[in-house]
Amino acid sequence: MALVVQKYGGTSVGTIDRIRNVASRVAKTYDEGHQLVVVLSAMSGETNKLVGWARELCDHPDDREYDALVSSGEQVTISLLAMCLKSMGYQARSYLGHQVPIITSDDYSRARIEHIGSEKLRADLEAGTIVVVAGFQGMDRCGNLTTLGRGGSDTSAVALAAALNAQVCEIYTDVDGVYTTDPRIVPNASKISRISYDEMLEMASLGAKVLQTRSVEFAKKYGVVVHVRSSFNDNQGTLVMKEDSDMETVLVSGITYNKDEAKISVMRVPDKPGVASQLFLPLSEKNITVDMIIQNVSSEGYTDLTFTVPHGDFKKALKVVEATGEQIGAAGVLVDENIAKISIVGVGMRSHSGVASKMFQVLSQEGINIQMISTSEIKVSCVIDVKYTELAVRVLHEAFELGSEAVTAE
Amino acid sequence: MALVVQKYGGTSVGTIDRIRNVASRVAKTYDEGHQLVVVLSAMSGETNKLVGWARELCDHPDDREYDALVSSGEQVTISLLAMCLKSMGYQARSYLGHQVPIITSDDYSRARIEHIGSEKLRADLEAGTIVVVAGFQGMDRCGNLTTLGRGGSDTSAVALAAALNAQVCEIYTDVDGVYTTDPRIVPNASKISRISYDEMLEMASLGAKVLQTRSVEFAKKYGVVVHVRSSFNDNQGTLVMKEDSDMETVLVSGITYNKDEAKISVMRVPDKPGVASQLFLPLSEKNITVDMIIQNVSSEGYTDLTFTVPHGDFKKALKVVEATGEQIGAAGVLVDENIAKISIVGVGMRSHSGVASKMFQVLSQEGINIQMISTSEIKVSCVIDVKYTELAVRVLHEAFELGSEAVTAE
Repeated sequence: MALVVQKYGGTSVGTIDRIRNVASRVAKTYDEGHQLVVVLSAMSGETNKLVGWARELCDHPDDREYDALVSSGEQVTISLLAMCLKSMGYQARSYLGHQVPIITSDDYSRARIEHIGSEKLRADLEAGTIVVVAGFQGMDRCGNLTTLGRGGSDTSAVALAAALNAQVCEIYTDVDGVYTTDPRIVPNASKISRISYDEMLEMASLGAKVLQTRSVEFAKKYGVVVHVRSSFNDNQGTLVMKEDSDMETVLVSGITYNKDEAKISVMRVPDKPGVASQLFLPLSEKNITVDMIIQNVSSEGYTDLTFTVPHGDFKKALKVVEATGEQIGAAGVLVDENIAKISIVGVGMRSHSGVASKMFQVLSQEGINIQMISTSEIKVSCVIDVKYTELAVRVLHEAFELGSEAVTAE
Repeated sequence: MALVVQKYGGTSVGTIDRIRNVASRVAKTYDEGHQLVVVLSAMSGETNKLVGWARELCDHPDDREYDALVSSGEQVTISLLAMCLKSMGYQARSYLGHQVPIITSDDYSRARIEHIGSEKLRADLEAGTIVVVAGFQGMDRCGNLTTLGRGGSDTSAVALAAALNAQVCEIYTDVDGVYTTDPRIVPNASKISRISYDEMLEMASLGAKVLQTRSVEFAKKYGVVVHVRSSFNDNQGTLVMKEDSDMETVLVSGITYNKDEAKISVMRVPDKPGVASQLFLPLSEKNITVDMIIQNVSSEGYTDLTFTVPHGDFKKALKVVEATGEQIGAAGVLVDENIAKISIVGVGMRSHSGVASKMFQVLSQEGINIQMISTSEIKVSCVIDVKYTELAVRVLHEAFELGSEAVTAE
């Protein structure tokens, strides 16, 4: 008998029929002899509807009230699932964040879980009750409702798994695992059976939006084994877990891409101490997330600084940069909105050389010009012209032999 | 400066525009220099949607989970109103039942308020903050969510007014007060400016569904002045308050009717001790509400027992009564589903004779046969054929001179 945490996302509980489907899955796991904690999101579309109403009422909704508003949807799904399970003859009990309690910081819309009171849940589990918990939400120490940010239900599930020392945290979603790359671009992309926390972090933050980044950080910190799988079939999914020596034998685990960035270059910046901070401080003050930053060695006392920002922040960023560029005596600002970032990710890189150079070579063989390069221990990213995105992903996927075996006709 | 509690029902907060309208009203009251507690229902239609989902999932939803489900709607309206007020420059703060806290019994779906913690609200009010509270909901002593029954937001508002010692509890609804009878039947029905708690109780329980009965009992117990008025205009509504000598000068305050009952007669019941309880105990065990009960003097050791039940319980009641009728040796059971109950209500009856006989006379002049009669201190009810309902209401309304002055052309 094991303690299992299962999390079902908005699509998986988006209709009454799907809630019934979730109930069957939960019942099946329980019947196999497991103790069970189920974490649910709100019905898909529900949060967007509420956010739409808030925007209709006011331009800048109050943070506290905004969290109270958007945390109302999970109350519906958890009570519906619990009553469905009870009508099927199972013991079940729903818990809102404040009923658990899940205590968080008071940073509305991006609260951090600080403490989970596990006594009531443990007593329920011991008594054979299926515990159904509202994801995404918590309560600060003053009793105010808080939320954990988009995708926060993943973090709720992982945190509960950590607090209860669960054997596995199963994240049910509408895809059946983490793939070596986007199957819409590479049809024979293969499902990764096991991936390390660090790789998953790079994959998630680079655009493979299967798990909330923070939930992976949480899982890594507490050693929670996360199983990403589909709520629509019984396939084995992807295990996100501690790195082991097997994983290192794989050079590259996945290829990711991101078309949602734009490039800004500040030309002929006088190369003296403090220039970079003068440039980037005003951006962070405006809450603009800067991704890649490249500064080349200077020539004749001047350097060029290039960085990328999300498309949504591009106009705001450009305005800020043009103003500061003038102040610091730069020659001008160049922009390019038609770029993509292609990355290869793999813990095997740490102990193997030649991975980056192989990437550059593969791209150059296809005549794809590399505009920017950035590397981390387990990742190499290149910025290229957006029109080459699919081509680049395909050739890299093939070069690093990530495809599943082709199905051959007999 | 006074402390005012305002309650807005589901229709008044049914759309974003209407929530904005409520915000303006609230702001206006605040600007007049009052401290303000606002109690809201869920958006109209919302609770029915949730109940529909529960029924789709299971025949008999679990009580605890049902309450958790149907109490989710108020969270949306209170946070939307609070953020709207804040965006207009007012201090405002939303409170769910458990945040106040509003402590109730653990009778799900019909919980009774046992205690209201008023410290946090008082501090907010002192600081000039408009307090926005979720109606209809509370929390039992174990932290489970509870609801107060349909229309329970009225009771929330009155209870808060009592706990905070508010000067008035304004109930905003889609009608602008309590009328002498249904204006759809009698176009010149007039608005009652002041009505006693007891009269209101008789009016409410007899079908004038403006206020939840329990809220009136609560108001009576704690002497809360309730002002029923419309959220769509500025008209003075109806004050529900302690009886005074002025009220007694009015013989009849209103005429109500109820078409939602059916009549069951048990014929030739042996007239011996215990027979009535043998008949009615099985009904109450099935949670069937019996309204009027008539037992006439017996002849030759037998009597006929007649009573009324809501249409919704009719079939279930008949089954129970047929079984027990046989056991106690009754001759048979007669039923009539086509009945209506017409009542006249007024505290003036206590000190004036002849009110009941005038009612009987008026009905008989129109050839309306009276099937059952039941009286209380301030009410006389007659059961008649349903097809005479409108006629009976109209002639009684005229006979007791309840109509407003006709508007005459100049």
